[in-house]
Amino acid sequence: MIPHPYLLFLGDAPDPLAAKVAQGIRDWRPDAAIGQLRLPGCNADMKLPDMDIAAAAAAGAKTLVIGVANRGGVISPAWMQVLEEALAHGMDIASGLHTLLRDQPALVTVAQKHGRTLHDVRVPTVAYPIANGEKRAGKRCLAVGTDCSVGKMYTALAMEREMRAREMKATFRATGQTGILITGDGVPLDAVIADFMAGSIEHLTPPNDPDHWDLIEGQGSLFHPSYSGVTLALIHGGAPDALILCHEPTRSHMRGLPGYDLPSLEALRDSALAMAHVVNPGCTVTGISLNTAALDEPAAADLLKGIEQRMGLPTIDPYRHGAARLVDALP
Amino acid sequence: MIPHPYLLFLGDAPDPLAAKVAQGIRDWRPDAAIGQLRLPGCNADMKLPDMDIAAAAAAGAKTLVIGVANRGGVISPAWMQVLEEALAHGMDIASGLHTLLRDQPALVTVAQKHGRTLHDVRVPTVAYPIANGEKRAGKRCLAVGTDCSVGKMYTALAMEREMRAREMKATFRATGQTGILITGDGVPLDAVIADFMAGSIEHLTPPNDPDHWDLIEGQGSLFHPSYSGVTLALIHGGAPDALILCHEPTRSHMRGLPGYDLPSLEALRDSALAMAHVVNPGCTVTGISLNTAALDEPAAADLLKGIEQRMGLPTIDPYRHGAARLVDALP
Repeated sequence: MIPHPYLLFLGDAPDPLAAKVAQGIRDWRPDAAIGQLRLPGCNADMKLPDMDIAAAAAAGAKTLVIGVANRGGVISPAWMQVLEEALAHGMDIASGLHTLLRDQPALVTVAQKHGRTLHDVRVPTVAYPIANGEKRAGKRCLAVGTDCSVGKMYTALAMEREMRAREMKATFRATGQTGILITGDGVPLDAVIADFMAGSIEHLTPPNDPDHWDLIEGQGSLFHPSYSGVTLALIHGGAPDALILCHEPTRSHMRGLPGYDLPSLEALRDSALAMAHVVNPGCTVTGISLNTAALDEPAAADLLKGIEQRMGLPTIDPYRHGAARLVDALP
Repeated sequence: MIPHPYLLFLGDAPDPLAAKVAQGIRDWRPDAAIGQLRLPGCNADMKLPDMDIAAAAAAGAKTLVIGVANRGGVISPAWMQVLEEALAHGMDIASGLHTLLRDQPALVTVAQKHGRTLHDVRVPTVAYPIANGEKRAGKRCLAVGTDCSVGKMYTALAMEREMRAREMKATFRATGQTGILITGDGVPLDAVIADFMAGSIEHLTPPNDPDHWDLIEGQGSLFHPSYSGVTLALIHGGAPDALILCHEPTRSHMRGLPGYDLPSLEALRDSALAMAHVVNPGCTVTGISLNTAALDEPAAADLLKGIEQRMGLPTIDPYRHGAARLVDALP
């Protein structure tokens, strides 16, 4: 677990998109961040109080989260002074960058001196077991996609928020770097050793109250050749009771693979359900989540209605309309 | 690549089964091993000349292969003297044990002194790429199973042998420890990081002559919750033109999972083919390989005939009958 509350470090983010990790925390765990730290030239703003390290430490910040990604995922020299100062003021540092905090000798030295922890959330820190496939109490919902980056994390977080607003028992379970930084915990599944992938997801979604739902962040796609094995491990480790199909309707080909068409929602439904039934014969597909950001409101409404009729499942864009209908449809 | 020829180290194998790695090399690469070394109490015999280290080195052995697994996969103190002597005589050592050669300080020291290499085939040594899904020349056949340990490696090796006897271009591609020790090369897929699984298989099966066949060793099963992600990465990284369904007809449940029934051959065919079509729309299921070791000859013959009629595919036990009919059926 990464200690809360956070100071969100936005660095010299050239634009808001570069700070999407910080934005995710701000959107989904607004209570987790008490301030932001921006360097000269920063063009992102989380509408949080601007604090320097001393002020953040005085306000109780426990971890500085690197909420910005710069080109190449490197740790900029311009950041180092701030990061060392945070450690000296008693904060941990958390990062999802490709370049690891632990590979920066200066940071390691300062962290050791002050007894702080460097959280590289890309690197598994748990010795996960091999999956045992045993039925466990509690319910689980998994978002599966026609492709990578079609809104699976957003969908699961939106469902969690809606369920908590209804005072249902619900926990978002992060399986990627951004999700882990948002919630402070999770499994960096794409960095887990092959034999332990499904076991890591069993570990992430342990037995729970019979009326508790895990909302599991999806990864990859059964139809994306680069990452499909990760997706199947999620299905078999997560043993979902409910699947949500996620899709981006304007995408012309699989992400990064110009030669590959996206599968139909029917093909995704049939493949994912058949695989889920191996571990949970009661699993059903309960809804469809579309990312319609590229469409105007009438076009989005038409598309959602058409797919809902065609597929016979509640079909929404959780960003436009919230996730209430997906929650209503859970078994 | 592990240098040939091998000296097969059988240690103090309590029974022939404990030396199954050595037996695999002896069966499938008889030219690769020039001798065996047995310690007092060894109850396995590869019918190779018994040699001590000095004799093996004089005969040209380049690598001592640990061909025996003892309880817990540890490196027995009784072995250490022999292993150090092999290094001192200019041989490499290769091992698929869970306990790594490189974690034995005494071996590391002696290997460094003599400039030899310790090959731990459980550990990937290549920085594999992320799969790009690009079509490549040459043909590929993958064995997929209803379960783990149903004869996938044996089937692929038997097909390679038959194809080479016919002077076809064929290469067995190892994806597990035993296969790697048999051939001296391959990908230890179960130890690869999730994001690079499919890429490691693309790397293992590069573009080739249009009439060349890779016979890819299968791993796990789409229906085995612990390892299914590995299997799907093999299907998508291997992009097979032909699938062989492998099955052990007397198994009562999935290996290690008493609560899980085996899938039908029809379910395996449909799931594996649908997933293979994502990367290779021309893929077909061309045959069925049964491990009938638990049945007598008439019972095996009846079963094979029945399945062949039911599935409409050549159905053989390659151990009893060779793999000729599977090779005949390749496209």
